[in-house]
Amino acid sequence: MSKKFARESATIMTEMVLPNDTNTLNNLMGGKLMHWMDVVAAIAAQKHSNRIVVTASADNISFEEPIHLGNVVTLKSQVTRAFNSSMEVFIEVTAEDIPAQKKTITHRAFFTFVAVDQNSKPVRIPELIPETPEEIENYEGALRRRQLRLVLAKRMKPEDAVELKSIFKIDLKK
Amino acid sequence: MSKKFARESATIMTEMVLPNDTNTLNNLMGGKLMHWMDVVAAIAAQKHSNRIVVTASADNISFEEPIHLGNVVTLKSQVTRAFNSSMEVFIEVTAEDIPAQKKTITHRAFFTFVAVDQNSKPVRIPELIPETPEEIENYEGALRRRQLRLVLAKRMKPEDAVELKSIFKIDLKK
Amino acid sequence: MSKKFARESATIMTEMVLPNDTNTLNNLMGGKLMHWMDVVAAIAAQKHSNRIVVTASADNISFEEPIHLGNVVTLKSQVTRAFNSSMEVFIEVTAEDIPAQKKTITHRAFFTFVAVDQNSKPVRIPELIPETPEEIENYEGALRRRQLRLVLAKRMKPEDAVELKSIFKIDLKK
Amino acid sequence: MSKKFARESATIMTEMVLPNDTNTLNNLMGGKLMHWMDVVAAIAAQKHSNRIVVTASADNISFEEPIHLGNVVTLKSQVTRAFNSSMEVFIEVTAEDIPAQKKTITHRAFFTFVAVDQNSKPVRIPELIPETPEEIENYEGALRRRQLRLVLAKRMKPEDAVELKSIFKIDLKK
Amino acid sequence: MSKKFARESATIMTEMVLPNDTNTLNNLMGGKLMHWMDVVAAIAAQKHSNRIVVTASADNISFEEPIHLGNVVTLKSQVTRAFNSSMEVFIEVTAEDIPAQKKTITHRAFFTFVAVDQNSKPVRIPELIPETPEEIENYEGALRRRQLRLVLAKRMKPEDAVELKSIFKIDLKK
Amino acid sequence: MSKKFARESATIMTEMVLPNDTNTLNNLMGGKLMHWMDVVAAIAAQKHSNRIVVTASADNISFEEPIHLGNVVTLKSQVTRAFNSSMEVFIEVTAEDIPAQKKTITHRAFFTFVAVDQNSKPVRIPELIPETPEEIENYEGALRRRQLRLVLAKRMKPEDAVELKSIFKIDLKK
Repeated sequence: MSKKFARESATIMTEMVLPNDTNTLNNLMGGKLMHWMDVVAAIAAQKHSNRIVVTASADNISFEEPIHLGNVVTLKSQVTRAFNSSMEVFIEVTAEDIPAQKKTITHRAFFTFVAVDQNSKPVRIPELIPETPEEIENYEGALRRRQLRLVLAKRMKPEDAVELKSIFKIDLKK
Repeated sequence: MSKKFARESATIMTEMVLPNDTNTLNNLMGGKLMHWMDVVAAIAAQKHSNRIVVTASADNISFEEPIHLGNVVTLKSQVTRAFNSSMEVFIEVTAEDIPAQKKTITHRAFFTFVAVDQNSKPVRIPELIPETPEEIENYEGALRRRQLRLVLAKRMKPEDAVELKSIFKIDLKK
Repeated sequence: MSKKFARESATIMTEMVLPNDTNTLNNLMGGKLMHWMDVVAAIAAQKHSNRIVVTASADNISFEEPIHLGNVVTLKSQVTRAFNSSMEVFIEVTAEDIPAQKKTITHRAFFTFVAVDQNSKPVRIPELIPETPEEIENYEGALRRRQLRLVLAKRMKPEDAVELKSIFKIDLKK
Repeated sequence: MSKKFARESATIMTEMVLPNDTNTLNNLMGGKLMHWMDVVAAIAAQKHSNRIVVTASADNISFEEPIHLGNVVTLKSQVTRAFNSSMEVFIEVTAEDIPAQKKTITHRAFFTFVAVDQNSKPVRIPELIPETPEEIENYEGALRRRQLRLVLAKRMKPEDAVELKSIFKIDLKK
Repeated sequence: MSKKFARESATIMTEMVLPNDTNTLNNLMGGKLMHWMDVVAAIAAQKHSNRIVVTASADNISFEEPIHLGNVVTLKSQVTRAFNSSMEVFIEVTAEDIPAQKKTITHRAFFTFVAVDQNSKPVRIPELIPETPEEIENYEGALRRRQLRLVLAKRMKPEDAVELKSIFKIDLKK
Repeated sequence: MSKKFARESATIMTEMVLPNDTNTLNNLMGGKLMHWMDVVAAIAAQKHSNRIVVTASADNISFEEPIHLGNVVTLKSQVTRAFNSSMEVFIEVTAEDIPAQKKTITHRAFFTFVAVDQNSKPVRIPELIPETPEEIENYEGALRRRQLRLVLAKRMKPEDAVELKSIFKIDLKK
């Protein structure tokens, strides 16, 4: 099975914030944004694996900047690393008030997906080759984030999370 | 400002999985479920604070069980703890294939919200009083989860995350 | 076929009134509310019968209180009585302006459903056992409402509507 | 205030039954149809009154014929009678399987609307003049249906429902 | 195969402009209107052919008059001419501000459709007989518009577009 | 007023074809695609003008390749030329069946937009500078397409359409 480059999965989605997407303050509802994130990330995962993919997890997302009615939202996604049948996808969200010429990166998030066949059974996927410095950084961080996910989902014991431990030991040892 | 009981914020939402909510395997898309989680949790946060609320964060969510086309999805939410102007909300999702009489708890998740005024400025909210053992457990865990969120959002140094550290030290010290 | 309690079918649905659900006065459109009533009632009917159900009728609904944009609408439904293959479902709608702490019961309605198999043929369903005083009252009234429906649909002659007649004779005899 | 003819309010709406409008048997959900009925009837009421209108009631609707995915649904509406500020609207629904050349009238229903000003206060509307035999029949029946609505909504005592009584006395006196 | 009259395909669709259909000036978005045009024209084409139809082309549409939030939009469609397996459909759009008693024809457009079988293969359809002067004019113009479409799609050489040429020669010969 | 490069307006939108977007053959409906084209083109026009924009026209679109349920549709748009207050936008649509690794350019279309202020009055916009050979070709063709639009909308006499005439004379002179 041939390897693929990170950039081959790059996907861009553009949405306009419409009235029904907003709360009473005329700001985009968090749930709607997560919905868009899931779609754009799923398409990147499909492009890498050429398979049907199902969402496996969404990492902690924090909402700091409100996105307003009428804003143009651009979501960029790219696979960061492939494991046996699962992939981590990085999503970056930009909100733009075009008439005001204001453009802000509002979110960075990680979702994971599993590639499956028609019977929902996981299937092997190509390895991913990172090229740019940012892709390499995301590729390396993927292992650490994966262990955090497994520990949080209680599917890995903290003491086995070698990658995660090496980080947290230093941070938390005092 | 008077205190309020956890149960006063309890909210139940029921949804049927329709064709447009599903992927090519006829399973509910993860993004749609996160959208529903955000709505049901926001309503619980509104009930506790009697204020407009905005999503502040969604914790790590993992998707293990597929939810199928035609299933009835029940989302229950309740505030677990109130801080100055923010609240953590617990969401439990149950999927039910009624004709097959199969019912499964598919997700447990935590979202946080900030109560704001008409100018989007945070406002003080009532304290929350947990009563049942489950409510007390969720109330106590809230502090730990909050520190993890702050560390992940790089808004707290790991060494200051006292609650989190006490947990991780034991787990990771070997 | 075992009997089931009324409370086993209880269903709660919560909706937020969004811009597209409203008319030019920013009030919820009647048709949207009827749509939600149908969904919440159908789920209760499914829970009682563990079958696919199809709407058979909606009783006279009157709209007295407007429900406003941003309100939280709670719809509670429960089967009141089961006949051979059909069920009557009671729906109560509450609208809540949470920041204003105003909560009103805005509608009470009755829908009926028929339980069917995959070929749309009606199937027998369990009897329903009412327990609380309200459930018993609804159970008893179901027969009368059923006769009114049949008379209005011209499927029963007024003189055969024994239950209905006993009521109307007294009311209308002058 | 000038009078208007019934036909001046005639409105036709055509909808295609899409996947999201259907239940698991691929038939149109009752709630969706009621939503369409409300929209087409509201437009007829607007045309008669040249005012903003709000739904006041929906009469008993019975669902006998299933409408299938892919069918073309035609809804025709026309005001039957105008009272001070309220109107009764008649709706006839036809479902058509065009490739199979099958066309059936599936529903006949009555909704009422109130004409209001920008502050939601009822306003006087023109009288309606029926012309065809069907329009005259609907015009005359409107009074009787109105009394039934008022009795069912407990806003008129059965003994005061003169129009309704004259009908029911004969039907029910045996 | 029997012939059919133009009027047999006449279809009327009525839509209300809702918040999500509008841009930041509260006017109907062009894309939404084109969506409605396609639906109403497809139904007319189905009525003429009694077949599944697929959109083949949309002619140049120009948007001169804005249509506002809350307006009632009426779309009328009718087949103008049938070729072997394709049909041209004429669509006329009227926008109405009912409270203001303002009604304007805002668009006239032509779409073409191909009638197909379950395997997407084109099938023969009945000839169309125009009756009224307007129907005859549309019938005759259909050939000319068809040649323009073919030339624009680069599927006909300009010199073979006899109908089109006869028009343009006069217009452009200077 | 400074000039802007064509590439500054480039916009990419990605959509998945969902059940409600398809006809009974499970292919994307033409009207839905035109809706997406309008949105992606409007955003490009906004980016060039930094203004609110309204659709002025959609050129002839032909639908040759069906796009299937589950396909990923990528729409790329870019302004080709700016006039006083109007812009022409080029849209290219690609449909991709990712598991089958099939990707096809299905549509090329031109829409025009007018930049307006809050009172819907046209405003001056920056000139556009094309750079690549494709951009230059589109820039030059824009004048010719504009004349065809004006002639078709009967707002320019064919004999004044100098650009258009020079083309058609050669093609049609025989």
